[in-house]
Amino acid sequence: MSAEDRTLDLWVGEQFQDTLQMRFRVRRTLYGAESEFQRIDVVETEGHGRMLFNDGKAMLSERDEFVYHEMIAHVPLFVLPAARRVLVIGGGDGGTVREVLRHPGIEYVRLVEIDAAVVEACRRHIPLTAAALDDPRVEVALEDGVAYVARTKERYDLVLVDSTDPIGPAAPLFGGMFYDDVRRLLTDDGVVVSQAESPFYELETQAAFVALLRERFARLAVYNYTNLTYPGGLWSFTFASRGELCPTADFDPRRVAASGIDFRYYSAAVHLAAFALPRFQERRLAPWLTAGKEGPCKSPAAP
Amino acid sequence: MSAEDRTLDLWVGEQFQDTLQMRFRVRRTLYGAESEFQRIDVVETEGHGRMLFNDGKAMLSERDEFVYHEMIAHVPLFVLPAARRVLVIGGGDGGTVREVLRHPGIEYVRLVEIDAAVVEACRRHIPLTAAALDDPRVEVALEDGVAYVARTKERYDLVLVDSTDPIGPAAPLFGGMFYDDVRRLLTDDGVVVSQAESPFYELETQAAFVALLRERFARLAVYNYTNLTYPGGLWSFTFASRGELCPTADFDPRRVAASGIDFRYYSAAVHLAAFALPRFQERRLAPWLTAGKEGPCKSPAAP
Repeated sequence: MSAEDRTLDLWVGEQFQDTLQMRFRVRRTLYGAESEFQRIDVVETEGHGRMLFNDGKAMLSERDEFVYHEMIAHVPLFVLPAARRVLVIGGGDGGTVREVLRHPGIEYVRLVEIDAAVVEACRRHIPLTAAALDDPRVEVALEDGVAYVARTKERYDLVLVDSTDPIGPAAPLFGGMFYDDVRRLLTDDGVVVSQAESPFYELETQAAFVALLRERFARLAVYNYTNLTYPGGLWSFTFASRGELCPTADFDPRRVAASGIDFRYYSAAVHLAAFALPRFQERRLAPWLTAGKEGPCKSPAAP
Repeated sequence: MSAEDRTLDLWVGEQFQDTLQMRFRVRRTLYGAESEFQRIDVVETEGHGRMLFNDGKAMLSERDEFVYHEMIAHVPLFVLPAARRVLVIGGGDGGTVREVLRHPGIEYVRLVEIDAAVVEACRRHIPLTAAALDDPRVEVALEDGVAYVARTKERYDLVLVDSTDPIGPAAPLFGGMFYDDVRRLLTDDGVVVSQAESPFYELETQAAFVALLRERFARLAVYNYTNLTYPGGLWSFTFASRGELCPTADFDPRRVAASGIDFRYYSAAVHLAAFALPRFQERRLAPWLTAGKEGPCKSPAAP
């Protein structure tokens, strides 16, 4: 079958906002299923390794997944003084969990993924990320993240909202009720980091989301990273603290060096630099950001 | 004609390295010509304003050209103590010249563009960038940049190599003979900033180019910016000093505030952050970089 596929001029693509298409050359298709929630596909591409698509949108490529996963996990884990318990909402591919587990202080990670088909597809075809889900410190719960945070009595030092776009199954993960519950289950100095879309293409979505977080969290910052396979290249995370923890002022670069972890994208310099937002983004989000700029929570990169 | 075009499902696209395509929805085509050097097209897109293509590769979009042009121009101009004379090689669209002219100390800008068709297409259809070429401080020379730097007796405080990829007419702009000449025409503390491709897709090209610069310049750094319409999102510039000027240690953020210029991407924080390279890129280029990391020329963002 793969030999025949190669004779096709086979491309998989994503159309964004009716104005932009990104297409990747495909060697062969590996997995395709309609789950209860969405369509899931895994393909092997010519230039980007294996790629996961949810409802036809690129979720990750083996070529650059390390960027997203290092940036969602290590930025908060090098700010939190001693995180032990982490909750990952979404992220059924396992990449975020893999990076969290590189911190030896982590005792327990709960992955709450609504769609069993994502976990199954990645366990079968993308072990680069999914192998982490077999670690004994990890519990994989196949349930709705919104329902879990509403019912649980557990508390967590860190919540990572590793979600798709705010349409389809992930839409409630951008809502106020969800973050009321997240706030409640965080420890006193706990932090929540969330996938926050593209500043170029989705700045108004970012502004609305940031305003919603600001009503619930004492400290709020936005940081950026680059994504090879998402439209626009530049994408953002929010960093929200229940207490006073600041992602720049409370960050000690020496901890990164002392960790001995061999990163591919993240470094102490990258950590601080990620909070230096483009002016158009900083200007739009300024009413709500309390960290990563001047003031009591000051970024060393923004004198 | 434009009404009929709209009934077509019209897209313009670029294929990169046989593995990736990026396509933009087109409202209408505005210009198309075969010059002596390459094919030039201007199209009006649905989501990215007007776009310029050279040999079918996206050169700029009105939507995000400010990022590239602010970053190539303002990073060196806020490091140089008092730049007066600037040489732009390539950049016939005029966007780089436009940003240079925002600095009131600039007395003379020479734009050396090999292809008259680029200048003509942009003057006619992309005044957002090309209008700057009418400024009385600007001289537009339609000639080969390699030949110009070899023959000129003029000296410049800053050279900006605003080139396309190292294939086709721009190939010699990535060569050692060209940079021998650039070094010679720089003032003693002069700086040359060059378009340096994508760290994700062209890291070996970057490494070879950086090695070539290092043989000729006392200080060398690489900084990154994001590009909506180039493959991979993250792209780089090199910063090379003939003298000892360091783009981070010799940068005074107060000059940016004092300038009163209303930037859309650039800021003092963005300036410093741009030199914090992803680990995979920093590791590969480290043998040749002398600035933007520890040492006598130290980045405040990399303690």
